[in-house]
Amino acid sequence: MDAETEQKTGAPSHVAGAPARQRLIDTAARLFAEKSFDGVSVREICKAAGTGINMIHHYFGNKDGLLAAVVEQFDTKVYVVPLRLIASPAKSQDDLVARIELLFETTLEACLAERDVMMVVMREQSELATLSAFQEALVKFLEDAQAKGFVRKSLDVPMISGAMLDRIISQVQFAPWILKSSGADIENDTEYRSRWTSSSVDLFLRGVLE
Amino acid sequence: MDAETEQKTGAPSHVAGAPARQRLIDTAARLFAEKSFDGVSVREICKAAGTGINMIHHYFGNKDGLLAAVVEQFDTKVYVVPLRLIASPAKSQDDLVARIELLFETTLEACLAERDVMMVVMREQSELATLSAFQEALVKFLEDAQAKGFVRKSLDVPMISGAMLDRIISQVQFAPWILKSSGADIENDTEYRSRWTSSSVDLFLRGVLE
Repeated sequence: MDAETEQKTGAPSHVAGAPARQRLIDTAARLFAEKSFDGVSVREICKAAGTGINMIHHYFGNKDGLLAAVVEQFDTKVYVVPLRLIASPAKSQDDLVARIELLFETTLEACLAERDVMMVVMREQSELATLSAFQEALVKFLEDAQAKGFVRKSLDVPMISGAMLDRIISQVQFAPWILKSSGADIENDTEYRSRWTSSSVDLFLRGVLE
Repeated sequence: MDAETEQKTGAPSHVAGAPARQRLIDTAARLFAEKSFDGVSVREICKAAGTGINMIHHYFGNKDGLLAAVVEQFDTKVYVVPLRLIASPAKSQDDLVARIELLFETTLEACLAERDVMMVVMREQSELATLSAFQEALVKFLEDAQAKGFVRKSLDVPMISGAMLDRIISQVQFAPWILKSSGADIENDTEYRSRWTSSSVDLFLRGVLE
């Protein structure tokens, strides 16, 4: 069977229209997130994706290859746009603030959209090439702004460069927990999302102290 | 068999001296962290802890009861000491700063010491009674300091109260990943740990901007 005939079988509706390769990635991400990488079989993934059981071998070689494809998709989707935002130096402190706001928003949106895959990546602690590039670019961006006097000289930039991402990943990772314990719904409540985003950016920019 | 005779069987060395109940909690934490809650059987836990297979039933009723005991131990160990640090209002901005530094350090130490259990709690997204009390106390502590003029009036305290914990949990959760990708060893390198702690506290207190 080829990818075209595969599409006519019983895949879940949200991935049914996608080509078999993409259906396998999306289905694997969901099942790995639900049951862990070791807890789901190749057969199960193919059945849920509505493909023949030889399709994982065909597209990815084996289950590890499928995981690598899942991770690569996350890495690209989540960090490529944010990376573009900090590729050139900030022209003023206002420009710096505007770009950090946008950086925070786009990264949060991307992590929310790719939450299943994010959970798998976190659990497996996979290597993320783009994440490393993103961190390096952020350090460069902030150190340049430090040299220009927009960022405090006393700030240890390489040490704190992960703080924004920690905040975002934590909120997305524990979204169901936060919803259950406080009723706050980062995924569907846009008012809460925007208040959470602006207060987090405000804390990152200005800190707690008067 | 009772708890006393149990101690003579083949438990791992670091828990061998502990009473059977504690050995079961520590062993379950480690195995749940390694393999997930669903991925490990009651029989496996008892074998690894060196107890008879009826001991989980005896002490915890069932596997869910054992998980609850694991979670409760984490909740108490990790949040009780930090909670004490913020139980009374800050007397000055210096007092506030000193207490936040201590709060950050003790919480980091506790999470590192209880990393296995933390990973289980994160994965299962268990209910944590003390964590809620801790968050409430922190909001109260910061809002009181805000009323006294030590903390910025424009800060949205309830929204940002989780930021410090996000930073700590992220560092502990991804410690093996960070070690592999950057060589930084939060668990054993005290110099790195102290630099990471002070820069994180500095960011929380003063933010990024000049």
